[in-house]
Amino acid sequence: MTTYQRIVLASRPNGDVTLDNFRLENVPVPEIADGQVLVRVHFLSLDPYMRGRMDDNESYASPQPLDEVMIGGTVGEVVASRDPRYARGDKVLGLLGWQEMGAVNGDVLRKIDTTRIPMASYLGAVGMPGITAWYGLNGILKPAAGQTVVVSAASGAVGSVVGQLASAMGCRVVGIAGGKGKCDYVIHSLGFDACIDYKSAVTSDALYAMLVDATPDGVDGYFDNVGGEILDAVLRRMNAFGRIAVCGQISRFGKGRTPLLHVEQILLSRLKVEGFIVSEHADAWPRALQALGNAVAEGTLKFRESIAHGLDRAPEAFIGLLKGKNLGKQLVKLV
Amino acid sequence: MTTYQRIVLASRPNGDVTLDNFRLENVPVPEIADGQVLVRVHFLSLDPYMRGRMDDNESYASPQPLDEVMIGGTVGEVVASRDPRYARGDKVLGLLGWQEMGAVNGDVLRKIDTTRIPMASYLGAVGMPGITAWYGLNGILKPAAGQTVVVSAASGAVGSVVGQLASAMGCRVVGIAGGKGKCDYVIHSLGFDACIDYKSAVTSDALYAMLVDATPDGVDGYFDNVGGEILDAVLRRMNAFGRIAVCGQISRFGKGRTPLLHVEQILLSRLKVEGFIVSEHADAWPRALQALGNAVAEGTLKFRESIAHGLDRAPEAFIGLLKGKNLGKQLVKLV
Repeated sequence: MTTYQRIVLASRPNGDVTLDNFRLENVPVPEIADGQVLVRVHFLSLDPYMRGRMDDNESYASPQPLDEVMIGGTVGEVVASRDPRYARGDKVLGLLGWQEMGAVNGDVLRKIDTTRIPMASYLGAVGMPGITAWYGLNGILKPAAGQTVVVSAASGAVGSVVGQLASAMGCRVVGIAGGKGKCDYVIHSLGFDACIDYKSAVTSDALYAMLVDATPDGVDGYFDNVGGEILDAVLRRMNAFGRIAVCGQISRFGKGRTPLLHVEQILLSRLKVEGFIVSEHADAWPRALQALGNAVAEGTLKFRESIAHGLDRAPEAFIGLLKGKNLGKQLVKLV
Repeated sequence: MTTYQRIVLASRPNGDVTLDNFRLENVPVPEIADGQVLVRVHFLSLDPYMRGRMDDNESYASPQPLDEVMIGGTVGEVVASRDPRYARGDKVLGLLGWQEMGAVNGDVLRKIDTTRIPMASYLGAVGMPGITAWYGLNGILKPAAGQTVVVSAASGAVGSVVGQLASAMGCRVVGIAGGKGKCDYVIHSLGFDACIDYKSAVTSDALYAMLVDATPDGVDGYFDNVGGEILDAVLRRMNAFGRIAVCGQISRFGKGRTPLLHVEQILLSRLKVEGFIVSEHADAWPRALQALGNAVAEGTLKFRESIAHGLDRAPEAFIGLLKGKNLGKQLVKLV
């Protein structure tokens, strides 16, 4: 290989993301400098947070620059190294973005053990999404056995781990997902106690009624991956001293703001509501990774992947992810 | 005295509270049983929470029953006692409600020292409102010196204490209050750094612009006594890792729900938002009371009282409180 493919942000979305927001480029394979490692990317992770980076609004993170490689988590294999800590053939986790290869400083890579755990899991259940689930649950929701935990985007990379971990803690676990297929997966494959198909609710009162049915004892912990109307419905159903971990707001992208009507519940039910970004809780990572890695290796933590094949399919797969077309972790397989 | 006056809830409000929601009654002074204490009430406390109790909606507290004495904090003097812990002449804090006298079990009273601290302060700065301020600030907002703390209903019994305690911690303190008179008081008498007269803002964007002016470094801690549009404006202005203590929602009574547009800030700025009711944090009371009592005795914690004279004026004073006509702690003087 003397050239490789990469995808850059060509333009910012005006509402919905479209294919022409991206541009595929062919570039020469770089020489590596001292301290650098050349990585061949095997899997690219697609995640909802990328949508936020595509805008140039004020946010917790800098926007993705135009004409530069789209940001993204990756796993791959070292093909050349001028960092003594890495050898050709090592499997590494990194943030190489939407490209087939990349030369990076060894400091920003982490070696991974793919003998016990499949490589792609380091982008999902044993990666950022899994740690997000673990931290939101253990660091914020802290549910007791017998309490009810609700999680939205329940079939996704984060939600599916939240629910399984909460089940293992002895909680009643209720998912919220879009469509019967996702709900069936959540109940029958992941073992949730119930799942609400929010797409089958035509009004917010109907959604609330479904939630009441699924949570006879109310809600003690809510892991919020979506914000908007679903958050508003769950707020109404929270028990006294309930906790809400606000992790994602996929619902807000490409729309106006959804007004929330039940924020008064924060006082009425004395709730703790906390927004978090897992990268800001690095102290939790080692413990989380160990717990998640063991659970995946032992087969007690299940996950599913939606895999697109080839870098050129990444934009389409990403747009699908934003529309909820994936089931489980959305990946792009490059090798 | 063989009879005394009391006020009962005659009907529940339909929107705004009106005078005919209350009824003044004359009743005989009771005989006291073994273990009981007869108290002559000197001051009755009027507080926004009473409005919530007048409805029979689901809430954290049971509704005020119809035809029974309105709930309320009181300070007074023991006039007869069949509890060996109390003697005639003792000053006591209690929850006797809107009445001139009452026979209660000694267990629900607390003796107070009125030699160092004025009796009425036990209903304000050294009472439930002061402890509410202390707990929200020290238990939830936990501001560092140099950070910016905003408090709404800033001239009220709670807000005035929040601001002065935060100033003493080295914070920049910005109040939000209704009217120039209240803002002048907050700045010139209480020493806040700035105050926003929300009544002078004709739109929510205007309110936000005033907030931006008053908080050049953003907002790190917000003590929310009102909810609604003001909460929504402050949410927009929160710094990363900001904290919001949700203590009151006076704005919601008698109106429909105010939709909030900026709840997404909880994630974008990784906020902690916590609703609380001070009576559920009894462990904090001794420390809070000691700090507040010392500050009042030493004259470093200032407060003002709006005093109505005579039990029959309580309904009118209470309606005025809900409309923000009071400055500082609203009391009714009965003796």
